[in-house]
Amino acid sequence: MQNFVFHNPTKIIFGKKTIPSIGPETLLWGNKCLLLYGGGSIKKNDVYGQVTSSLKETGLEIIEHGGVQSNPLLSHVKQGIDKVKAHNIDVVVAVGGGSVLDSGKAICAGAVVNHDVWKFFTGKKSIKRALPMTAVLTLAASGSEMNSGMVVTHDETRGKFGFGNKLLFPKVSILDPEATYTVPADYTAYGAVDAMAHVLEYYMTTEDPATPVQDRFMEGLIINAMDSCDRCLANPHDYNARADLMWTATLALNGLTGAGLGRVGFPMHMIEHSLSALYDVPHGAGLSVIIPGWLRWHSMQDANKIIQLGSRIFNFELRGIEPAAHTTIKILENWFTRINTPIRLAEFDVPPGDIPVIAGNALRLAKIWRLNQYSQQTIEEILALCL
Amino acid sequence: MQNFVFHNPTKIIFGKKTIPSIGPETLLWGNKCLLLYGGGSIKKNDVYGQVTSSLKETGLEIIEHGGVQSNPLLSHVKQGIDKVKAHNIDVVVAVGGGSVLDSGKAICAGAVVNHDVWKFFTGKKSIKRALPMTAVLTLAASGSEMNSGMVVTHDETRGKFGFGNKLLFPKVSILDPEATYTVPADYTAYGAVDAMAHVLEYYMTTEDPATPVQDRFMEGLIINAMDSCDRCLANPHDYNARADLMWTATLALNGLTGAGLGRVGFPMHMIEHSLSALYDVPHGAGLSVIIPGWLRWHSMQDANKIIQLGSRIFNFELRGIEPAAHTTIKILENWFTRINTPIRLAEFDVPPGDIPVIAGNALRLAKIWRLNQYSQQTIEEILALCL
Repeated sequence: MQNFVFHNPTKIIFGKKTIPSIGPETLLWGNKCLLLYGGGSIKKNDVYGQVTSSLKETGLEIIEHGGVQSNPLLSHVKQGIDKVKAHNIDVVVAVGGGSVLDSGKAICAGAVVNHDVWKFFTGKKSIKRALPMTAVLTLAASGSEMNSGMVVTHDETRGKFGFGNKLLFPKVSILDPEATYTVPADYTAYGAVDAMAHVLEYYMTTEDPATPVQDRFMEGLIINAMDSCDRCLANPHDYNARADLMWTATLALNGLTGAGLGRVGFPMHMIEHSLSALYDVPHGAGLSVIIPGWLRWHSMQDANKIIQLGSRIFNFELRGIEPAAHTTIKILENWFTRINTPIRLAEFDVPPGDIPVIAGNALRLAKIWRLNQYSQQTIEEILALCL
Repeated sequence: MQNFVFHNPTKIIFGKKTIPSIGPETLLWGNKCLLLYGGGSIKKNDVYGQVTSSLKETGLEIIEHGGVQSNPLLSHVKQGIDKVKAHNIDVVVAVGGGSVLDSGKAICAGAVVNHDVWKFFTGKKSIKRALPMTAVLTLAASGSEMNSGMVVTHDETRGKFGFGNKLLFPKVSILDPEATYTVPADYTAYGAVDAMAHVLEYYMTTEDPATPVQDRFMEGLIINAMDSCDRCLANPHDYNARADLMWTATLALNGLTGAGLGRVGFPMHMIEHSLSALYDVPHGAGLSVIIPGWLRWHSMQDANKIIQLGSRIFNFELRGIEPAAHTTIKILENWFTRINTPIRLAEFDVPPGDIPVIAGNALRLAKIWRLNQYSQQTIEEILALCL
């Protein structure tokens, strides 16, 4: 096990009828809040009503900033920063999925500096302080509710970049599984794939020495991402299925899976970010295309962890190294197909001729994330396995 | 899944050569510290030297309070409280295993009130504030390094009581697996049993609905408690084995295993506390006697979770309910025997005639912990299964 520091100060309030605690929890951090949300789905399922009632009853002044898109845009973040500065806002209340929470963190970081917030994403500036953020989660997927990271897309360059800082953990995140009842089947599945991808990025890290404690934890999360997603799709109002998926997605990226693994790269995310930045495909959909291709490529370098995963969680008989890795990848692919997420680039109408452009865009992120083993040619090879 | 709040603010610094960070980390909380430790083993393995050097180099003033015993005594806690008050101490630095850390928390709670600290343990007073505590862990066992609970024994009444409060999470805990190289084989094994017992208490909780995310996490911890202990005993200087056991024990009782399970009782601990309070047996040794007996008793009420555990982690073929539960318990018992921990009361020279007295002592704790289904007779029945 490698040395590590684990310090996750986010308070999680999980369960039925917990949303009304957003007011009192936010009041601990200020009197005037920026209420950040997305395209308005929270107005259809009454989450908006519950949140605003609680904030108002607690005496908080609300400035609204709706309209966060999936694959959230830097321009919208900057508008939020301008509002915070213009209104002297104390605290950001992010209500939505990962895109909203990620935008909220970027606003918290950018609202206390005079330079372009994008400089944090390109590593040209580092964070010294930030506004506090509280959150109500409405989508089981990104894990942003209990970590300090975020991903935002630059409107012009289409660079989809991410970074994290310990000052950006949400102070509190409220997770009511009932708020996800109305998430449609496709986005429920994308969320489960996203959670699985987060676990796989860590799991496939092959730095010595072995980390058996973390491995078992991650294998359990992968089993539960698949199983709870299946149950959510079978019955969208199954509370326990929604709760299991929600908590799985949170645990998948709150720092615990990676604690002790050393430096972990996010190669599948690196390639997918390029895909969703260029074609605006949902992040989880992009991942379900990239995962099998990347695993196929990785199995040619080192198949051990893929075989360990399959043999432990899928209970199949091993028949030699290559078939075992192949079987594991095939089972994952079959699951993607069952939950109706894409597994080939062609499903996005991306022509094979675009591969060099996708790889070129991904390469920019590979350099920032110091994934030095990924050249233009390597990324093209991986993308070719996704055709 | 039941509603829950999860908020664990302890910072974990884990790995080789991390002990010298105790000075700077403690300085964040004050200038004058109470250095709390046990019987002096930290002087033999140089942990004491590393800690005091770091504290002094950082400019901290040190008041020492050594001599914490295993099954720590209230009288020693009270002496610590007196020292803190007499010297206007800002922060407690606990260096040792669970007994030292638990004593430290009790001192932090008692140092800021004028009444008897025992009133917190009997529920007659509740905590409003507490001194901060930092810690260096030297034993993988109790999990006290990342939770807010503690257990202390009353010198006269021999009541071994526990309680917890969110103000008592250590601010930081430093976990250097190398500091456990010199833990002898018996206490290494007792620590692994303690960690396993913590997981089992939660795992065996049978409140509906099911908690599959937590179940998989706990099964992984049980596998790793057993496996890493075996490796530590085979080679006490195996860094990865010590690291895996240490991190397993921390995760076994940091709140994550229980999040979403609803109200969880600690019946095995309830009975063991009586055993170690009356006969001063090591906590982990007492647990390895109580676990098989309690599981046998529990399997007569509800064998489902025992069978789930065995079938998932021990890979045996199920042959009907009773044999499957029996096989699981037998495998655990065989492991206790292999790591040389006791499995029968007779191994402590406790005569069968003492059972009513042990049960009577345990019953006091059953009432405080509201384990209402445990009568004197029930506890006697369980103890009879430990003969």
